[in-house]
Amino acid sequence: MAQKPSIPKGTRDFSPEEVAKRNYIFDIIKTQFKSFGFQPIETPSFENSSTLMGKYGEEGDRLIFKILNSGDYLKKADAKALELKDSTALTYFVSEKALRYDLTVPFARYVVQHQNEIEFPFKRYQIQPVWRADRPQKGRFREFFQCDADVVGSDSLWQEVEFIQLYDAVFTQLGLEDVTIKINNRKILSGFAEVIGEQDRLIDFTVALDKLDKIGEAGVRKEMLDKGISEKAIDKISPIFDLKGSFAEKVSGLQTILESSETGMKGIEELQFIQNAVAEMPLKTATLDLDVTLARGLNYYTGAIFEVAAPEKVKMGSIGGGGRYDDLTGIFGLKNMSGMGISFGLDRIYLVLEELDLFPETVRENTKVLFINFGDKESLYAMKSIRSLRNAGITAELYPDSSKMGKQMKYADKRDIPFVILAGEEEIEQQTFTLKHMKSGEQDTISLEDLVSKLS
Amino acid sequence: MAQKPSIPKGTRDFSPEEVAKRNYIFDIIKTQFKSFGFQPIETPSFENSSTLMGKYGEEGDRLIFKILNSGDYLKKADAKALELKDSTALTYFVSEKALRYDLTVPFARYVVQHQNEIEFPFKRYQIQPVWRADRPQKGRFREFFQCDADVVGSDSLWQEVEFIQLYDAVFTQLGLEDVTIKINNRKILSGFAEVIGEQDRLIDFTVALDKLDKIGEAGVRKEMLDKGISEKAIDKISPIFDLKGSFAEKVSGLQTILESSETGMKGIEELQFIQNAVAEMPLKTATLDLDVTLARGLNYYTGAIFEVAAPEKVKMGSIGGGGRYDDLTGIFGLKNMSGMGISFGLDRIYLVLEELDLFPETVRENTKVLFINFGDKESLYAMKSIRSLRNAGITAELYPDSSKMGKQMKYADKRDIPFVILAGEEEIEQQTFTLKHMKSGEQDTISLEDLVSKLS
Repeated sequence: MAQKPSIPKGTRDFSPEEVAKRNYIFDIIKTQFKSFGFQPIETPSFENSSTLMGKYGEEGDRLIFKILNSGDYLKKADAKALELKDSTALTYFVSEKALRYDLTVPFARYVVQHQNEIEFPFKRYQIQPVWRADRPQKGRFREFFQCDADVVGSDSLWQEVEFIQLYDAVFTQLGLEDVTIKINNRKILSGFAEVIGEQDRLIDFTVALDKLDKIGEAGVRKEMLDKGISEKAIDKISPIFDLKGSFAEKVSGLQTILESSETGMKGIEELQFIQNAVAEMPLKTATLDLDVTLARGLNYYTGAIFEVAAPEKVKMGSIGGGGRYDDLTGIFGLKNMSGMGISFGLDRIYLVLEELDLFPETVRENTKVLFINFGDKESLYAMKSIRSLRNAGITAELYPDSSKMGKQMKYADKRDIPFVILAGEEEIEQQTFTLKHMKSGEQDTISLEDLVSKLS
Repeated sequence: MAQKPSIPKGTRDFSPEEVAKRNYIFDIIKTQFKSFGFQPIETPSFENSSTLMGKYGEEGDRLIFKILNSGDYLKKADAKALELKDSTALTYFVSEKALRYDLTVPFARYVVQHQNEIEFPFKRYQIQPVWRADRPQKGRFREFFQCDADVVGSDSLWQEVEFIQLYDAVFTQLGLEDVTIKINNRKILSGFAEVIGEQDRLIDFTVALDKLDKIGEAGVRKEMLDKGISEKAIDKISPIFDLKGSFAEKVSGLQTILESSETGMKGIEELQFIQNAVAEMPLKTATLDLDVTLARGLNYYTGAIFEVAAPEKVKMGSIGGGGRYDDLTGIFGLKNMSGMGISFGLDRIYLVLEELDLFPETVRENTKVLFINFGDKESLYAMKSIRSLRNAGITAELYPDSSKMGKQMKYADKRDIPFVILAGEEEIEQQTFTLKHMKSGEQDTISLEDLVSKLS
C-alpha cells in the first residue's frame, strides 16, 4: 500500500542545488583547514552510551538520541523498571549505543584511544553530522553538520593567533567580509570575580555579564543582585560597563580594573600577545575585537574564548566560536593535554551567504550541454561526441529518449543546462554539430574541435 | 572517573591517512558522477520507521537500527507487550525512527516526496553512510558508506550503456585496470524458466544457477532437483552450462536456447543493443562480459543486471553492482517510473587499491614544510612567511612551542613532513630561510621568493 512519504521533524532532504551550495562552503573550510596543517579524522556516528552520557550535563543527556539494542532487547530488562514504566531506568537496559551529540567528546575519546599512534601536537579537523533531540524550530535541526578544527598537546599562544587567521582566511575566501572575531579570556573573567571577592559566584557573574548586549547595564546589575552579588561588589566592577574604544584602549582600561588580580593580569598579557601578533600580520577582511562580556561555555574554556559575529547588516547571532581548554581528554584518562578549538556554524553561514547573495553563479552549474535525442543512429553519434567532451572535462548528456523536441528543450531549460546540441542526419554526414545557446537562442553549426574549445 | 575508551563493534575510527585515501576514492567517483550529469542529493540519517520497515524483507527489518523515542517513551507503551516482555511488539510503541539501511529506499521516498520539483529523467547520485545491525566480521561493518548513482523516469537502453561507461571511467581513473563488468538480463533468466516450463520456480532456479561458479554443474543440478525442478527440465536447459567464448558467441548460443521464449528473445535484443553500442565506443580498461548465471537481487531487477569483479589477481568478490528496476517508487505511490542504478563498494575498492598499491604517493601528503620554533621573535618571522606560503597554496606550519630541536625534527619526521625551515637570528637579519630536505638532509639558505618557487 502506498504511504504518503515524509521525513522526521527536524531533519532535511537536500536538493542538488542545496548540496552544491553546502559543498561550496565545506570545500572552502576544508581547503583552509588543510592549508593551516589540520588533518581530517572521522569517528563513528554512534558511540557507546557510556562515552557520551554525563558529558553534556543533564539536559544534554536527555537530548542524546539513544539506539535501541537489536534482537530481544527486553530479555535482560529490569523487571522493576518495566513494572513502574520508568523510561529513564529502562534506557540503561535496552540501549547501549547513542548517536554523536557533538564532535568534541568523540575527538577526546579518539585522542585517548589512539594516543600511541598520534604525534602531538595533534591538529585535526572533523566535518560530520551530529544529532540532538532538541525541539525543532527555525534554524534549529535534529541533524546538522559541525565543522571543527582543534589542536591538542600545546599551550602555545601562537595557536590562538593561527585560529584567528584561519577564521579570517575562511570568511575572506567565502567573500563574507566584515565579520567580527570577538575575543575574551577566561582569566579576565576570573580576575573580575577575584577583584570583587566573588570567586565562588564566577558562573553567576559571567552568565549575567554575558547578557549586557541584550538587557543593558541595569538588567545585568539586577541579575547580579538577584544572584546574591553585593551592590558594593558590582559598583567596584562597574568600570567594565564603560570599556570602549579600540582594542588597546579597552586593554588599558582592563589594566586599571584588574591590577590587583594576578590571574586577570595574566589574561591581559595573553590578550596583548595575540593582539600584537595579529597587528603584525593584519587580517584580510575580519576585525578582531575585545569583548569582556563574552563567556560561552565557560566551565569548559580555560584561556582564550572566541566568537564570530556575522556582518552587522545581517541579523544572525554567531557564525562560529571556540576557545582554549586545558583538560579535554581528562574525562578519558589522559591528563595535561592543553588544547584549543574552533568551529564554523555551517547552517548559519549558509543563510548569511544566501541573504547577501554571495554564492557564486557557478555553484549551481552542473551539466553544460544536452544532446537532443533524435533516435538510435543519432544517439550513437551523440554518445561518441559526449565521450570526447567528457574527456575534455565538459559535462555532457544525451537526453535518453527520442521524445518530442519541445519536451527535450523544456528539460534543458528547467535544469538550467546552458547549451543544447542538435545533431541530425545532416550533421552526421558533415561531422558537425548545431550548438544552441539556450538563453540567447543563438545557433552555430561547428566541428567537434570547435565544440570542445567553445564549451571549455 | 576515567573510562577506557572504545567504540561499538562493527564501527571504525578513520585516521588522517585513512580519511585521505577514502576521499581519494570518493573524489574520483564524484568527479565521474558529475561528468556523466548526475546531481547530488542527501537525505536524513534517520527516516520514519514506516518508511523503512517492510522494504527489505524480514531479515532486513531485524537488521535496521531503531532509535528510542525521546522523553518518557514508556508512557504510551502497550501494557501487554511490557508484561510479556515482547520486544518485537514493544518496538512499535517506543521507536518511531530508524537509521537508514541503504540509499535506495530513501531515494525512492525522496523522488515521490519531491516529484513536483524534479525534472524527469532524474539522474542523482548519493554518497552517505548506512547502518546495519549485522554480525560484524572481516570486511563487514555496522556503519559503511554507499555510493549510488541512479536515473529514474526513462527506460532507454542508452542508460545501460552510460552506466557501463561510468564504471569504466571510474575504475580507469582509479588506476584499477582489468575489472570485469558482468552483465545479464532478468528477461534472459525468465526466458530460461519459461523454456523449461518452470516459471513458478524462477527464484529457486536462478538462486541455484547463480552458484555455478562455486558448486559446479553437478552441484547446481542437485540443488535444482532438490527444489523440485525435473531432471527433464534441467536437461533441456543444460546447454547454458556450456556457454563459452566471446560475448557474441554466448549470445548466439542463447538464441538457440531461448528461441521459443518471447521474453528471452527480448532480453537478447537488449543485450545486443548494449553490446553493439559499447563496441562502437570501446571501454578504456574494463571488459564487458555476459554472465547468464548472474542474478543478484532478482525480485528487484526487471532488465539489465550488473556486477563488477575486481581483477582476477585479487581475491575480492564484487566491487560494484546494479541493474534496472521498473517500479522502485511504486511502494510510495508513484507508478510507472522505470529506473536503473549502480553502486560502488567503497570498502572493497579501498582494499583492492591497497593490495595493488594503487594509491598515489601524494594521497598522504599534508603539510609540506614545518618551521622550527626558536622563540617568539623567530616565530613571528616564521608566521609572516607561512602566510605568504599559504597564499601561494603551500601548506606550512610553525611548530607551536620552542621545544628542543630534536623533538621538533622528530615531529616533522613522524608526520612525513618533507621539509623543515630553520630561521634564526642570522636568517632574520638577512631575510633568508634555511630549508632542509628531511630525507636527503640537504640544506639551502634562500630567499622567500625562492622558497615559494621551490615548494610550489
